[in-house]
Amino acid sequence: MYKVNIGKKILSANEEYALKNSKLLAEQKKLCLNMISSPGSGKTTILTRTINDLKGKIKIGVIEGDIQTDIDAERIRATKAPAVQINTNGACHLSAAQVNNALESLPIRDLDLIFIENVGNLVCPSAFELGENGKIVVLSVAEGDDKPAKYPAIFAKSKAMLINKIDLLDTSGQVDFDLERVKADARKLNKKIAIFPISAKTGKGMSHWYDWLIESVEKLRCP
Amino acid sequence: MYKVNIGKKILSANEEYALKNSKLLAEQKKLCLNMISSPGSGKTTILTRTINDLKGKIKIGVIEGDIQTDIDAERIRATKAPAVQINTNGACHLSAAQVNNALESLPIRDLDLIFIENVGNLVCPSAFELGENGKIVVLSVAEGDDKPAKYPAIFAKSKAMLINKIDLLDTSGQVDFDLERVKADARKLNKKIAIFPISAKTGKGMSHWYDWLIESVEKLRCP
Repeated sequence: MYKVNIGKKILSANEEYALKNSKLLAEQKKLCLNMISSPGSGKTTILTRTINDLKGKIKIGVIEGDIQTDIDAERIRATKAPAVQINTNGACHLSAAQVNNALESLPIRDLDLIFIENVGNLVCPSAFELGENGKIVVLSVAEGDDKPAKYPAIFAKSKAMLINKIDLLDTSGQVDFDLERVKADARKLNKKIAIFPISAKTGKGMSHWYDWLIESVEKLRCP
Repeated sequence: MYKVNIGKKILSANEEYALKNSKLLAEQKKLCLNMISSPGSGKTTILTRTINDLKGKIKIGVIEGDIQTDIDAERIRATKAPAVQINTNGACHLSAAQVNNALESLPIRDLDLIFIENVGNLVCPSAFELGENGKIVVLSVAEGDDKPAKYPAIFAKSKAMLINKIDLLDTSGQVDFDLERVKADARKLNKKIAIFPISAKTGKGMSHWYDWLIESVEKLRCP
């Protein structure tokens, strides 16, 4: 009883900031996507390639969430895109208040799309709304094809799923991963989820993801 | 202030159960190792191979922690080893109370070694003591070589690190992973950590891990 009440309080405080963020983004008609995955699924590599390939088409900024270090923000800044690093100092997810601070540091007016790269964690970040327009779950084929079944919450809540590192399926033959099983399991949890098998390393499949991003930015501008 | 106090209370309740578990294990001189990693690093595959290869040498039981499903416990039971599944129903880590319940369901007297396979999460489980003798962190080479720097807590606390899926380094050439950097970063956090590069799929490197397990069981019996 004690624990349940507290859970509620923390979520409500977070939700207040999430609402603030959501209003700010809606007023300026900016798309904001909250990227969630296990550590090492390739979120930062997906972002750097996306930013570079969409130069001249969509202006992207990034809020980087990490427990420690600014390794990821540095990788983003190398693309010349604006990036703000949040260090959670041990916490397992980003909070809406942290994102609110970060939004103030980004040149939002000049951007079309803001990515939030959450702390690498397939569980906790799915429970904390940040005021984003949608969540993107990333799964690498090296993690195995049982993940939607075992970690359903984030797959149920995401607008899109990126299945990354498909280059490992093509050539090594050493990764057992049933792409159709993953797609079917994800769609059982979430009929509307958009699914993009990609390799952020080789570029394979990325064009479909880019089309979806461009369409999503345009829809927000002219609904 | 409010939040800090609550964090303390929950940890203390957990620590009470952790102490119970630790006493129970010490009385019976049983080794208990708490395995922690991101989803999909290969924990269950490591366990099934370890159980099969050590048959006749060490008797192993497993406590399986998952948010949902009993996929992993079924995989362990296929080896004929006793396994108890804990479903956390959304929680991101195992608690000592859950492990206490599970220990009651295992035939501890007949076992030498109890593995706890924690929920797939590189962050939260490291903060909850379960009464184990040691933590084992598992990292797959597909996750990248920056993980000890970015998620230091679990590397600082673990007795051993398994670097899994090294078969992907040998043949595909498609995974960028600097083994020496990971070893050095982990040792910066934890001078005493034992490090085993392995492939649970091909068996490469597993014999060193087995030697360490056998030695650890023997040390506990005759300190």
